[in-house]
Amino acid sequence: MIDQTAHLDEQITEMARNARRASRALITLTADDRSRILTAMADGINSQATEIMAANQRDLEAAHAADLPAAMTDRLALDEKRIDAMANGVRTIAGLPDVIGTVLETRKHVNGMTMQKVRVPLGVLAMIYESRPNVTADAAGLCFKAGSAVILRGGSEAQRSNDAIHRAMIDSGCGAGLPEHAVQLVRTTDRAAVGALLKQDQYIDLVIPRGGEALIQRVATESRIPVLKHYKGVCHVFVDRDADLDMAERIVINGKCQRPGVCNAVETLLIHRDIADVFIPRIAAAIMQCGVELRGDADVCMLIPKAHPATENDWREEYLALILAVRVVDDLDAALDHIETYGSRHTDVIVTSDTDAANRFLNEVDSATVYVNASSRFTDGSEFGMGAEIGISTDKLHARGPCGIDELTTYKWIIRGCGQVRE
Amino acid sequence: MIDQTAHLDEQITEMARNARRASRALITLTADDRSRILTAMADGINSQATEIMAANQRDLEAAHAADLPAAMTDRLALDEKRIDAMANGVRTIAGLPDVIGTVLETRKHVNGMTMQKVRVPLGVLAMIYESRPNVTADAAGLCFKAGSAVILRGGSEAQRSNDAIHRAMIDSGCGAGLPEHAVQLVRTTDRAAVGALLKQDQYIDLVIPRGGEALIQRVATESRIPVLKHYKGVCHVFVDRDADLDMAERIVINGKCQRPGVCNAVETLLIHRDIADVFIPRIAAAIMQCGVELRGDADVCMLIPKAHPATENDWREEYLALILAVRVVDDLDAALDHIETYGSRHTDVIVTSDTDAANRFLNEVDSATVYVNASSRFTDGSEFGMGAEIGISTDKLHARGPCGIDELTTYKWIIRGCGQVRE
Repeated sequence: MIDQTAHLDEQITEMARNARRASRALITLTADDRSRILTAMADGINSQATEIMAANQRDLEAAHAADLPAAMTDRLALDEKRIDAMANGVRTIAGLPDVIGTVLETRKHVNGMTMQKVRVPLGVLAMIYESRPNVTADAAGLCFKAGSAVILRGGSEAQRSNDAIHRAMIDSGCGAGLPEHAVQLVRTTDRAAVGALLKQDQYIDLVIPRGGEALIQRVATESRIPVLKHYKGVCHVFVDRDADLDMAERIVINGKCQRPGVCNAVETLLIHRDIADVFIPRIAAAIMQCGVELRGDADVCMLIPKAHPATENDWREEYLALILAVRVVDDLDAALDHIETYGSRHTDVIVTSDTDAANRFLNEVDSATVYVNASSRFTDGSEFGMGAEIGISTDKLHARGPCGIDELTTYKWIIRGCGQVRE
Repeated sequence: MIDQTAHLDEQITEMARNARRASRALITLTADDRSRILTAMADGINSQATEIMAANQRDLEAAHAADLPAAMTDRLALDEKRIDAMANGVRTIAGLPDVIGTVLETRKHVNGMTMQKVRVPLGVLAMIYESRPNVTADAAGLCFKAGSAVILRGGSEAQRSNDAIHRAMIDSGCGAGLPEHAVQLVRTTDRAAVGALLKQDQYIDLVIPRGGEALIQRVATESRIPVLKHYKGVCHVFVDRDADLDMAERIVINGKCQRPGVCNAVETLLIHRDIADVFIPRIAAAIMQCGVELRGDADVCMLIPKAHPATENDWREEYLALILAVRVVDDLDAALDHIETYGSRHTDVIVTSDTDAANRFLNEVDSATVYVNASSRFTDGSEFGMGAEIGISTDKLHARGPCGIDELTTYKWIIRGCGQVRE
C-alpha cells in the first residue's frame, strides 16, 4: 500500500516536472504555431471519431452496470453530433485572437528605460473535472491557446472517453508541432492521484476544479497550488418597489426557467414589501405555470397557499432545479443584507426604475457580476464576448466572473535599458 | 489552555467579522473622503509623536533586555525623523490618484446592454509583518486607499510602537470619518493569533505576509485565505559574450553593492565562457574592492584564487549581504537553465549587445521582472511609478512584481440593461 502511494506520487511528480519542461518549449511558439496546432487537434477529434465513440460506449456500459443516475449517463454520452461540436469548439479556439505577448502597459522611466507590462503564459495548469468528456477537449484547447502546459484529470466514469479524446488530439497535435507533454491526461482512476497533483506547487502554477461543491471544497482545502474556484451560484433577483413589473416578471422567469441547471440561474427572489401584494400573486401564478415550486417566507406563504414554507437552508441553496425561494424584504438595505449573508458572490440582479437604488445595488453588492434590469443568465463567457470560457470565477483574486483565455494568463515586466544603474 | 485557544479564536473571528462589516461602510466612501481621512491619519502620527516615541522606547528597552541582535534593534528604533517620514508616507498615499471605481473596460452587448469592468476594493485584507514599525502606517494607508478594511499583525518586539502608531492614526482618522473597525491591529502577541487569522477565509479576502522566509512559508502553508507572497529574490545577472564590459561591470556592482540587504540586489553572476578569461579578473578586482566576497565555480576559482569554492547551496542563496556567487556558463541556454533551476522568479538581468539573445532572455526567463542592460535594483514600486508599494510579488496569480494600490484591488462586472433576457 505504501509502495503504491509512493509510486503514484512519483508518477504524478514526473508528469508535473514534464509539464514544466513543456511550458518552456511552449513559450517559444508563435501565435501561428498555436493556431495551426489547435486546428490539427480539432481535425484529430474528427478523424478519430469512431475510436472516441467506441471508448465512450465502454464508459456507458460500465455506467449502466454501476447503475449511475440517468443525468450522469446523459452527460457522459457522446454521439457524432457531440463529437463534431467538440471538434468545432477547438476550431473556434484556434480562430480566437492570440493574447500572448500583448503589451498591456508601457511606461518610460525618467532615466530612459522602457518598461512594458506584457501578457505571458502562466506556465503549467491543472484541470480537475467531472463527468462531461467534452471538457477534455475544451480545457486542452483553452490552456494551450493561453500558452500553458496542462495536466487534465477527468472523472473516472469518463476515463475511456477522455483517454480517446486526448489521444486523438495529441496524435494530430504532435504532427503539427505540439511539444511533448504540453497536454497530459492523468490515466489512473485512483482518487489519490488528485491529492498527489495538489502537492505539486513547485511545478504547477494554477489548479482549476470544475464540478460539484464537494470536488471544489476538496481541491480548495487540500491544494498547495493557487486555485481558481468556480463555486456555486446562489443568484438573486431583487424587485424594487418602483420596478416595471412586466420587466421584473420577464427577468425572473428567464432567470429561473430558461435553463435551471446552470450556475447563473436565479435561486432566490427578493421582493420589496411595498409591492409584495401586487407582485407576488402575479409572479407566483406565472412561474408556477412553468412548473416551478415556490419556497416562501411567512408573507409569501400567506399570499400563496401553494408555496412551501422556506427554511433557513433554502436561502443558501443552489437548487439547479425548478425551485425558487421567495422572500419579502422591507427595503433595499434589507435586500443588500440578505445577499451579503446568503449570497455566493456570483451574480445578482436588481429590477428598478430608481437610479439611486440601482447605483447603490451595483456598488454595494459584492458579487462578480451585478445587473440592473437584465437577466442573470447573461453571466457567461460567450455573452461577455470572450469567445470561450473555462468557468465563472467566484473568487476575487486574479479573475472574477466569466474566465476566458486572458484569465488563464499572467504578466511580466520587461525592461529595456542601455546601462542604467540606480543612484 | 484549550479555553485560552478558544477565546483567542473567538476574538480573532470577531475582528474579522467586524472588518467585513467595515468593508461595507468603506465601499460608500468617495475618493475625497479617503484622501481627507488619510491626511487626518498622517496628522495624527505627527501630533502623537511623543506618545509613539515613548512606546518605542519601551520596545527598545525590552529588546535590549532580551538581547535582540543590533540589526533588529536598528530596524525597530524610531526617532523624530523616522516618525516624520512615516507621516509623510501616509500623506503621499493621500495624494495619489484614487483608483476605486475606475472603468477598466466597456463592452456593448448586441442586445443593447452596457457591460463595464470596474475596479473595486477587495474587501478585507490581512497584513502579517515583522520588526519595522513603519509598516503599520504604510500598510494601513495603502489598504485604506485601496478601499479595503485591514487587520494588521506586527512583530511582538514592536508591539508597543505599533499600538501607539495605530492609535494615533485611528484617533485622528475617526474624527475625519474613518469607519469603525476599518483599520484594526491584533493586540495579543500570542503567536497562535496568526493561525487563528489564517482560518478566517469567510471574512478575509487576501493575506499579505511581509518578512523573512520562515514567516512567509508558515503563512503560505497554513492559510486558507489566498496569499500574496513577497518571497525571496535570488536575482541573476547574465553577462553575455558580446556584452559591453564597462556596462556589465557597472550593472553588476550597482546590483550587488548599492544596497545589498534588499530583495532586488544581485546574488548570482553568470558569465558566458567566451569572455570569462577577460571579464572575470576584471569584475573580481572591482567588486572585491567594494568588500564583496566571491563564491565561484571551478573556473572562477582557477582565475581568482581569493574566491571561495561555491557549493550547490550557494546557487539558491539570497545572501542579502556583500557576497556574490559566480559561475561560468557555456552559452545562453545554460544561463536560462541555471536561472530556471535556482532562481526565485523575482528579477533577472542580461547584459548583451545581441538583440536575439536579449529577446530570448526576456521571453524565456520566467520571472516577474526581466531586464536587458539595466540594473536589477529598479524592481521597486516607486521606480515603477506606483507611488507606494506594499511589496514585490513573486507569485504569478493576481499580481506579479512590484505591488502598488491597483494590485490591492479587484474588479467586478456591472451590467446595465432595460429588460433584456436570454433567448
